[in-house]
Amino acid sequence: MSQPSIPQGTRDFGPVQMAKRTFIFDTIKSVFQRFGFQPLETPTMENLSVLMGKYGDEGDQLLFKILNSALDKKKDHEKVAIKAAFDKVLEQSYTSNLITERGLRYDLTVPFARYVVMNRNDIALPFKRYQIQPVWRGDRPQKGRYREFYQCDADVVGTTSLLCEAEIVLMLNQALTNLGIKDFTIKINNRKILTGIAESVGATGKEGDLAVAIDKLDKIGKEKVEAELLERGFSSESIQKLQPFFAMKGNFDVQVALLADLFQGSETGQKGLQELSEVIQLVTAFGLTDTHLEFDVTLARGLSYYTGAIFEVKAGGVQIGSICGGGRYDNLTGAFGVPGLSGVGISFGVDRIYDVMEELSLFPSKDTISTRLLITCFDKEAFTYALPVLAKVREAGINAEIYPDIAKMKKQLDYADRKKVPFVVIIGSNEMATGRLALKNMTTGEQKSLSVEEIIEVILYTEQ
Amino acid sequence: MSQPSIPQGTRDFGPVQMAKRTFIFDTIKSVFQRFGFQPLETPTMENLSVLMGKYGDEGDQLLFKILNSALDKKKDHEKVAIKAAFDKVLEQSYTSNLITERGLRYDLTVPFARYVVMNRNDIALPFKRYQIQPVWRGDRPQKGRYREFYQCDADVVGTTSLLCEAEIVLMLNQALTNLGIKDFTIKINNRKILTGIAESVGATGKEGDLAVAIDKLDKIGKEKVEAELLERGFSSESIQKLQPFFAMKGNFDVQVALLADLFQGSETGQKGLQELSEVIQLVTAFGLTDTHLEFDVTLARGLSYYTGAIFEVKAGGVQIGSICGGGRYDNLTGAFGVPGLSGVGISFGVDRIYDVMEELSLFPSKDTISTRLLITCFDKEAFTYALPVLAKVREAGINAEIYPDIAKMKKQLDYADRKKVPFVVIIGSNEMATGRLALKNMTTGEQKSLSVEEIIEVILYTEQ
Repeated sequence: MSQPSIPQGTRDFGPVQMAKRTFIFDTIKSVFQRFGFQPLETPTMENLSVLMGKYGDEGDQLLFKILNSALDKKKDHEKVAIKAAFDKVLEQSYTSNLITERGLRYDLTVPFARYVVMNRNDIALPFKRYQIQPVWRGDRPQKGRYREFYQCDADVVGTTSLLCEAEIVLMLNQALTNLGIKDFTIKINNRKILTGIAESVGATGKEGDLAVAIDKLDKIGKEKVEAELLERGFSSESIQKLQPFFAMKGNFDVQVALLADLFQGSETGQKGLQELSEVIQLVTAFGLTDTHLEFDVTLARGLSYYTGAIFEVKAGGVQIGSICGGGRYDNLTGAFGVPGLSGVGISFGVDRIYDVMEELSLFPSKDTISTRLLITCFDKEAFTYALPVLAKVREAGINAEIYPDIAKMKKQLDYADRKKVPFVVIIGSNEMATGRLALKNMTTGEQKSLSVEEIIEVILYTEQ
Repeated sequence: MSQPSIPQGTRDFGPVQMAKRTFIFDTIKSVFQRFGFQPLETPTMENLSVLMGKYGDEGDQLLFKILNSALDKKKDHEKVAIKAAFDKVLEQSYTSNLITERGLRYDLTVPFARYVVMNRNDIALPFKRYQIQPVWRGDRPQKGRYREFYQCDADVVGTTSLLCEAEIVLMLNQALTNLGIKDFTIKINNRKILTGIAESVGATGKEGDLAVAIDKLDKIGKEKVEAELLERGFSSESIQKLQPFFAMKGNFDVQVALLADLFQGSETGQKGLQELSEVIQLVTAFGLTDTHLEFDVTLARGLSYYTGAIFEVKAGGVQIGSICGGGRYDNLTGAFGVPGLSGVGISFGVDRIYDVMEELSLFPSKDTISTRLLITCFDKEAFTYALPVLAKVREAGINAEIYPDIAKMKKQLDYADRKKVPFVVIIGSNEMATGRLALKNMTTGEQKSLSVEEIIEVILYTEQ
């Protein structure tokens, strides 16, 4: 395969540029927030009806249009036929690049691999990168499954050190704890252990089928799993030999001892156990007291891809799938002609984490993004009086705004209410005369006459 | 026009969700950084050759493919003809949505307008939103012009208050100052003043032509501008009457007095002057000492769009176009069937700001994203000894990592060097025996024996 490239007019932003760009974005963002602006993000894709005709003829030409995916079925039968014919032509046209030569990012791993290959002379290996960006898939949308969603990945490439696996466990612990999620389990397994099981039950090379089947133990029970294994070509004898694995129980050491016994004939299985044990030892060496780790010999996530450790995180107390997943893969950049680079990574399922935190009410009530003070005025004179007050409050680092029109007080308070602004300052002739302004706590309803300095103190030191 | 909608499977993230999502992203990011991971962003668009075949047959189907833009010209003549024919069919197919029904975001304003219309019952007006996201245009790429680039916009809709204009001036001042850019000019004008000029020289309705021509005064000089005006149908008499405008000089008050005199016959012109003066008064009322403001009667940026104030920011000391731009528009959501919503906004040209800051060396040398400490070890024993040290350093809020393999010291130091890590701890048998570790400052080359606590102090309190 020839060297990969990126489309003309697009850029990768490596760590150095990202640090600088982040500085710019963060600086501008915090000023926007200081002035009471709130963040909005809209989808990357818009319906053409929204976009076309809005930017003049030139804009219509310059707009990037997205080909309907094969899944965008039309009901009209004639159209179905045309679409099918078009899809066929399209497929034949890929090599000519005549109709389409670019696609939307589908995950973060392939672009990362492409980046590593294109920049392999400049990257210091091992390369530890994280990437948080949206990806797109023409899947049929349903609850919790979107066509545009964020992935949030961290990977290390260029080393086979098991320390990386241990640090993933540490990162998961730290991140989930910092998010306020206390009840979670980090399941760990190793692809080599699955291979070892297949080998030791006389089903060498069938770890894929085995994994798919035993993954369902929880859901459909042992009998149905055994039926499925039979269907997938496992012999009755193999299934008989699987019984000890199904029955696997006890703490980490007990399970490892059991497996070591069963893996006497499988070198790969032994290697898997050894890797697993070393990861656990390293995690312990870091001094972590509660690792949340659980060895799950039936964990088989993305088996075709992973070659070593396999991770999955489940949150307790909510009915939801895994919230993080990852593992080690031995050939990240092979598809781009650079073999032999091993990597290990973890991906946070941001949408599911959002749902978990929402359901368990874990979002901190105090947010640093929103407006904390609205200044309201009875008349134009008060409005002019208010401007330097506003400047002072903002200078103290408080996100604040003034209602921009001379309007009825009810309307102004209503605005604060709808925007969930926790404090309101009210300025009228009395306040201007005394210099003591009315500060209203919108949560408690309490109202006090205070100097600007006192107002700043109250806002800074009141929990929202 | 019917109610706008968003493509199936996509989502708008309004202020409330954004606050929560930001909390999640920031928390995970800072953990990634604490463990020495660095950020990467790759383009939204990848060449199909990079993507196809990487996700299995299903992935190839689910990939969103982007139609070649009309500008993607093929050299092969036969292909040119086929492409042209295809583009024509495509154009006819837009209404049927058969081939394409979605496009990539072209700017942030149209999606914002669409969002306001779709959520107008839930939004508290005036709505102050900021949005920082990439946009895509099939323009011919050249230096400083990309097909994927970020826009960084803040707008207020739902009020005609000139306070919003004044706050834009304040925000520009604050943001550029915080970025470290000291030498900049905020040019301000008003669309109504341009209308007034056209009216008062007997060229009513021709402010568009006037603007395009006088915008070039700096570049091509007065004589050529006059020639262009003649060409654009201005009479010699009108051009004669324009002389005082060309010669406009002096501070704000002087210019306004001159214009007031010339606008005696133009109500619109007078209104423009009045708006301009009020914005300046409001900025002054905030107590800003150096406003960086400059009234430029020839500023005509995006004239077809703006209806009131027009802004543009130029950076001094660098040869580069404007770094910010914006203004007031009276009919943001008219195209989506909701007339009468006035808005005013500002857009930061992030790519140009990056270039300005790079050229003037304004990026702070201390960044909070990168690794500050690398621990290196002579052997496996030292490696195990190092892990709790690493945990302690990270706990103190320092982004730190350990070289994950047992490798030659030179290789480990080389890694620190290439990754620009400012501090390295070296652990060998001596260090383990005494508990005092060797801390090497990679900038100065200085090396000291210190306890872990002392190392933490040094790193926290040393400027990078």
